[in-house]
Amino acid sequence: MNTNKIPDIIIGRLPVYLRALQRLSEKGILTTSSQELGEIIGISAAQIRKDISQFGEFGKQGTGYSVPFLIERLRNILKVDRVWEVVIVGMGDIGHALARYNGFANRGFHINMVFDIDPQKIGQKVGEYEIYDIATLAERIKQNKIKIAMLTVPATTAQETADMLVKAGIKAILNYAPTSLNVPPGVRVQHIDPATHLQRMTYYLD
Amino acid sequence: MNTNKIPDIIIGRLPVYLRALQRLSEKGILTTSSQELGEIIGISAAQIRKDISQFGEFGKQGTGYSVPFLIERLRNILKVDRVWEVVIVGMGDIGHALARYNGFANRGFHINMVFDIDPQKIGQKVGEYEIYDIATLAERIKQNKIKIAMLTVPATTAQETADMLVKAGIKAILNYAPTSLNVPPGVRVQHIDPATHLQRMTYYLD
Repeated sequence: MNTNKIPDIIIGRLPVYLRALQRLSEKGILTTSSQELGEIIGISAAQIRKDISQFGEFGKQGTGYSVPFLIERLRNILKVDRVWEVVIVGMGDIGHALARYNGFANRGFHINMVFDIDPQKIGQKVGEYEIYDIATLAERIKQNKIKIAMLTVPATTAQETADMLVKAGIKAILNYAPTSLNVPPGVRVQHIDPATHLQRMTYYLD
Repeated sequence: MNTNKIPDIIIGRLPVYLRALQRLSEKGILTTSSQELGEIIGISAAQIRKDISQFGEFGKQGTGYSVPFLIERLRNILKVDRVWEVVIVGMGDIGHALARYNGFANRGFHINMVFDIDPQKIGQKVGEYEIYDIATLAERIKQNKIKIAMLTVPATTAQETADMLVKAGIKAILNYAPTSLNVPPGVRVQHIDPATHLQRMTYYLD
């Protein structure tokens, strides 16, 4: 079976399944069902069964899914059965919060380096990290063969910084700047913009 | 035309269109096309035309869209032609970053109050905000008829805090805790979890 053919919309749900399964596992739960997962996540059991069946046979009617096995398989499919090194570019409030965030452990990511352009910040420490000069970004990223960046610079400089990252070999950008980014084919961008997320909900409010 | 029938997946894209249009507007640009928007956002021009046509007639073949008019219409549809008051619950790093975030201005949201459970934090100031005791949350939210909360507490206490928020009348939760939430029908949840967003991209990396 070729997992490369899984549609993007399903890939988008797999990390949510994985997170729910990992929380069940932390509670010592070894078996689950599409019904239980559906209630946790807020997606229909039928949708979950359909999504999971896309990448092979799991569980049997009536016996449910093995939590550790499904976690292992999802981590493998999403390629987070390894640790990806990540850089943070922009050490404002959000950059600081991400550098100290403990939610990456066991989820496939490790913050490797952090950068800023402000001479007042360069050389300072944030937790275990020394803030590096953004001027050294390309060299350091290339040297360390890093593929993933979190971009937490202002919207006004986000595109030029993204261009630098792409040139240095970055293939995935988690963009916290409240603006869209143009990147060449082969580079992925995900956006985290609280106002956009809030606006998806106000439509439904009275 | 009944905008209540717009599918959720299209509603999810409208804030992204709005953000791109507002950035064009800031640059003094008064007219755009589905091609130009598509290049900015990374969505096909055909998809954009189809989405926009869901809620009425905009622009004409060859003349493009009026940026101010489309902004006005999108703000109206998404109900961000008003200002929604928002509370932040949990004043750790992310709560602090959100309280000081300047990306909500002109996008329909205003932080009204911030809360924490830690006696060391209660009463302290974050920017213009005094951190209130979470024990006073229900009363303050009801009194101020607030509908929207950003939840930035640890995963372990996220569900019980969400239950308190829902009981107090909150109808939309932007959840930063890395866990799913059970909420009753009529309450919307959006998740911001950087690890989940990163995992959506690693699937495509070599």
